[in-house]
Amino acid sequence: MDLLTIKDPSFLKGMSNKELEALSQEIRQFLIEKLSATGGHIGPNLGVVELTIALHKCFDSPKDKILWDVGHQSYVHKILTGRACEFDTLRQFKGLCGFPKRIESEHDVWETGHSSTSLSAAMGMAIARDLKKEKNFVLPVIGDGALTGGMALEALNHIGHEKKDMIVILNDNEMSIAPNVGALHNILSQLRTAGKYQWVKDELEVLLKKVPAVGGVLAATAERIKDSLKYLLVSGMFFEELGFTYLGPIDGHNFEDLFENFSYAKKTEGPVLLHVITKKGKGFKPAETDKTGTWHGTGPYKMDTGDFVKPNKKQPPAWSSLVSETVRRMARSDERIVAITPAMPVGSKLEGFAKEFPDRMYDVGIAEQHAATVAAGLATQNMKPFLAIYSTFLQRAYDQVVHDIARQNLNVFIGIDRAGLVGADGETHQGVFDIAFLRHVPNIVLMMPKDENEGQHMVYTALTYDDGPIAMRFPRGNGLGVPMDEELRSLPIGSWEVLKEGDDAAILTFGTTVPMAMEAAEILGKQGISVKVVNARFIKPMDEKMLSGILHENIPILTIEEAILQGGFGSAVLEYAHDKGFYYSQIDRMGIPDQFIEHGDVGSLLEEIGLTTEEAVKRVSILARKKQQRA
Amino acid sequence: MDLLTIKDPSFLKGMSNKELEALSQEIRQFLIEKLSATGGHIGPNLGVVELTIALHKCFDSPKDKILWDVGHQSYVHKILTGRACEFDTLRQFKGLCGFPKRIESEHDVWETGHSSTSLSAAMGMAIARDLKKEKNFVLPVIGDGALTGGMALEALNHIGHEKKDMIVILNDNEMSIAPNVGALHNILSQLRTAGKYQWVKDELEVLLKKVPAVGGVLAATAERIKDSLKYLLVSGMFFEELGFTYLGPIDGHNFEDLFENFSYAKKTEGPVLLHVITKKGKGFKPAETDKTGTWHGTGPYKMDTGDFVKPNKKQPPAWSSLVSETVRRMARSDERIVAITPAMPVGSKLEGFAKEFPDRMYDVGIAEQHAATVAAGLATQNMKPFLAIYSTFLQRAYDQVVHDIARQNLNVFIGIDRAGLVGADGETHQGVFDIAFLRHVPNIVLMMPKDENEGQHMVYTALTYDDGPIAMRFPRGNGLGVPMDEELRSLPIGSWEVLKEGDDAAILTFGTTVPMAMEAAEILGKQGISVKVVNARFIKPMDEKMLSGILHENIPILTIEEAILQGGFGSAVLEYAHDKGFYYSQIDRMGIPDQFIEHGDVGSLLEEIGLTTEEAVKRVSILARKKQQRA
Repeated sequence: MDLLTIKDPSFLKGMSNKELEALSQEIRQFLIEKLSATGGHIGPNLGVVELTIALHKCFDSPKDKILWDVGHQSYVHKILTGRACEFDTLRQFKGLCGFPKRIESEHDVWETGHSSTSLSAAMGMAIARDLKKEKNFVLPVIGDGALTGGMALEALNHIGHEKKDMIVILNDNEMSIAPNVGALHNILSQLRTAGKYQWVKDELEVLLKKVPAVGGVLAATAERIKDSLKYLLVSGMFFEELGFTYLGPIDGHNFEDLFENFSYAKKTEGPVLLHVITKKGKGFKPAETDKTGTWHGTGPYKMDTGDFVKPNKKQPPAWSSLVSETVRRMARSDERIVAITPAMPVGSKLEGFAKEFPDRMYDVGIAEQHAATVAAGLATQNMKPFLAIYSTFLQRAYDQVVHDIARQNLNVFIGIDRAGLVGADGETHQGVFDIAFLRHVPNIVLMMPKDENEGQHMVYTALTYDDGPIAMRFPRGNGLGVPMDEELRSLPIGSWEVLKEGDDAAILTFGTTVPMAMEAAEILGKQGISVKVVNARFIKPMDEKMLSGILHENIPILTIEEAILQGGFGSAVLEYAHDKGFYYSQIDRMGIPDQFIEHGDVGSLLEEIGLTTEEAVKRVSILARKKQQRA
Repeated sequence: MDLLTIKDPSFLKGMSNKELEALSQEIRQFLIEKLSATGGHIGPNLGVVELTIALHKCFDSPKDKILWDVGHQSYVHKILTGRACEFDTLRQFKGLCGFPKRIESEHDVWETGHSSTSLSAAMGMAIARDLKKEKNFVLPVIGDGALTGGMALEALNHIGHEKKDMIVILNDNEMSIAPNVGALHNILSQLRTAGKYQWVKDELEVLLKKVPAVGGVLAATAERIKDSLKYLLVSGMFFEELGFTYLGPIDGHNFEDLFENFSYAKKTEGPVLLHVITKKGKGFKPAETDKTGTWHGTGPYKMDTGDFVKPNKKQPPAWSSLVSETVRRMARSDERIVAITPAMPVGSKLEGFAKEFPDRMYDVGIAEQHAATVAAGLATQNMKPFLAIYSTFLQRAYDQVVHDIARQNLNVFIGIDRAGLVGADGETHQGVFDIAFLRHVPNIVLMMPKDENEGQHMVYTALTYDDGPIAMRFPRGNGLGVPMDEELRSLPIGSWEVLKEGDDAAILTFGTTVPMAMEAAEILGKQGISVKVVNARFIKPMDEKMLSGILHENIPILTIEEAILQGGFGSAVLEYAHDKGFYYSQIDRMGIPDQFIEHGDVGSLLEEIGLTTEEAVKRVSILARKKQQRA
């Protein structure tokens, strides 16, 4: 059939299993083809083709609520709910979002991006349904990786206790982004290999009648024996103990198996956990055989070979590599260095470190809070933990940074990856809040390098600093291609650097916006406006001596940051100026405005919010003119 | 013995069980007596007297690391480690801290206050120990309530997987602050009543040999049957599945039982979970029979009767009551209102609401992240969730506020209790960061009332607002005793209120610091300085019209807030002034400086950090003088 003509999932109701299988193949082909051009989360989506079709056939969306945990596996759902025609624009500026988006469709009932939220949201929806005395099914679809996130476990504990009707679809593909870790993963492995024990129930009951009657010390344990038998009968005892009816394991690529279990789940009272086994990347060889997570989310690739489309010229080192490899280099001479990642060994480019120091690298799974406090625990024992974490996921560990790390003033090095705009992943992944949520935390040092050479020195600075927590934010993508110093050195904490002298105005900035500032200064220079450019690489503490000097000279200031403006670096400059009584200072700020920033290429996004060289030129011109008027 | 002479726990080594029992009684008497004067966490500490003594007798602190989760149960530990003489100053300004404090003693290896952090920290310590090839025991002591916190569950999952040597002491008193909820609680209840099954192992094995051999479909299930038998033998299957050796349940008031199990745990490889049953408040009748949590933490009380020492005159309503009761009042006419609390039904004074609307009140346990996202889920279904949460604990749900609530612009009313300084609980509990971590979140409305009458109107405002999340912060303690309007009304979003006119300077403030501003204005008035006082009750969005007017008139501004200064309300005023080009504005800010604020009475703390009327008078005088000089 022509997928582009699909308006809603109702057409599935009349289809036979054979037709559904044919549809599955068409959808796979469509995804493999479309994503080869746009890139996207190919692996997760190929894994849930049959599961998504089965859900939409057996349930009645949007009356029944399907919640996609994390949400990167919602492409098939998007196709079945009338959005196939938009796949050419997937994850592009003003195009189809790579995650569920309520504005796109009434079938997207819950927006995600961060993991492990679906069970809590489903609980809210189930409570609402029951209070309103409505009838519908609530169906969170959660991966085995996302299940280890603390809030998902909190939700399991609460849902199991409240006994609300809910069908949790556990989409078990044995890996999340990287191969999964954790005891829960081991439990699932056992279940996968155990087979479907609920079907042997009758046979077992007959057998059990033959067991001799027990007495003595065991008399009181009758109930316990019954539970034990239940454990024999039902393989998912872990979930049963938490109050769920466990069904599974189910072949997630077999329609008959899915329909049978959905039907049973519909009739079951209270919360059900439906354990569905799927194969990530199914139907596309390179993705299907991927063991490391390379095919979780990709850029464009060649459909025939599975080779990634690579840029023509050699790229400067990726920021994640630069940081992790510098940590690795330092770990050779400092045995106290231990790396910790919450499920991002690949994204954070820690493979090399893990290979060289397998005992000193901990992937703790999707568990940001735990990751941060493990680092704190290590630091109490005079170790040097490197917490590798994305800016957007550090939000999950805000309290741990405040309460465990900063309050105890522990020497933890937080490597804040993907800081600033990240592009295609969009709203849920932009790393734009970290300055605002860290700058007010006492004891913390926060810095951002202008290029990869300064970046390696900052890593050195962080790992040799021993007066509390120190964080370095760095962007997604690659460095600038600058020459690298051989020897690492420490930067004085709180030191800024003048990149260009000037006295009509000063631009204070750091990180990704340094080139923008330099460019603006050059343009302004040609207009006769002499602009000082300062690499304000320490966001906290600031270089008060340099800042004070600029304020003393009454030079107007423009701050630029690729981060939210409220409470950001520019605010720190304002605070300093007013605290020190420089009430007459002209300070203007550029940065991310007070809104969530959608998906799209970073260039378009910067353009849209006016974070551009042109805007910087305009703002500085106005400041400089005002200064001249005053003079 | 004289508890005041204890220097360290080594004296315990030579004591007989009889002597230890006598010591236990002395410690109980000491605590009951001392806390009757100072107040404090009497219930939790009376429950762990024997457990703490046993730990210090059998293990070797500080070489062995004892980590007190939450930490309010560390008083006995403090006595045994030489701090009995400081109990007269407990929780007072510059006195003994009510939580573990590394600066106080080398035996306090991990600082707490927020719950559920000990397992992650213990994991960090265990990793460090093994890397350093040292030998010691790591002993997190965690309550059954704290165990349901997401980060503790993340830690269980990781520890069980890594198989690190660690002895987790599960201090199960069947309640945390309020009676516990959650499936895990049900599991523990079963274990408690099940008895010590490990002791019947031999008997069972004999019996099992009599079971007829199984075949057919069961042939493949031999391993599973073995597991099932394990379930018969070992009651803690839930923990066993997670990779722990489960020991228990153990009578936490019986030294012999404790010693025997500690000894067994010491010899066991990998992580052990030792399930210890204790009685909260043991040895003090009123606390022992408490079913609601009243005796969890208290003010001073009468030792003989257990009556609380009450203030002489009738107090104005507690802020928590005012808010919860207003929500309750509105819930009578709006069926969509649902209250959610993460384990604080008593602290948040939700008992009345729970009694009147049992179906519309959810205590989700210690699970702040889940609580916030349940609220978000409810809001997607057009319900009106009221999330009752303390400022300091909202830190745990920062990402959920950003990613789930604000990003989807959902109508959740967040009641931020204990905002500002909380006093005796100290560093870990001060509610001073919420403005800084919420102000930069797009879509959110943030407000704080000047008194309880405005407070009730704000609750009305929040519950009738339907354009996204709205949060109201309110302080610990009681209102001002102002007259209350009978009819509730909505305040225009973003509206400020002029409390006093003046044109030499303006003080912008809100909440608890409004009386301070009024007082300062009065003093300044007598000095001939006319001060405008503005109730800046909406922190976000601000009353831009009013602020713009003040800036236009070039009136110097002092902002006052009982919150951290970095990125706070004062910064918002600076940002606005500079964004709108009021570069020549004199704006000064008062608030909490860039440091963690210790424990003590709020008055002393405010004095210490200079958040006083005198300071406000001084600052305004300087501003006004500068203005005159300019004029």
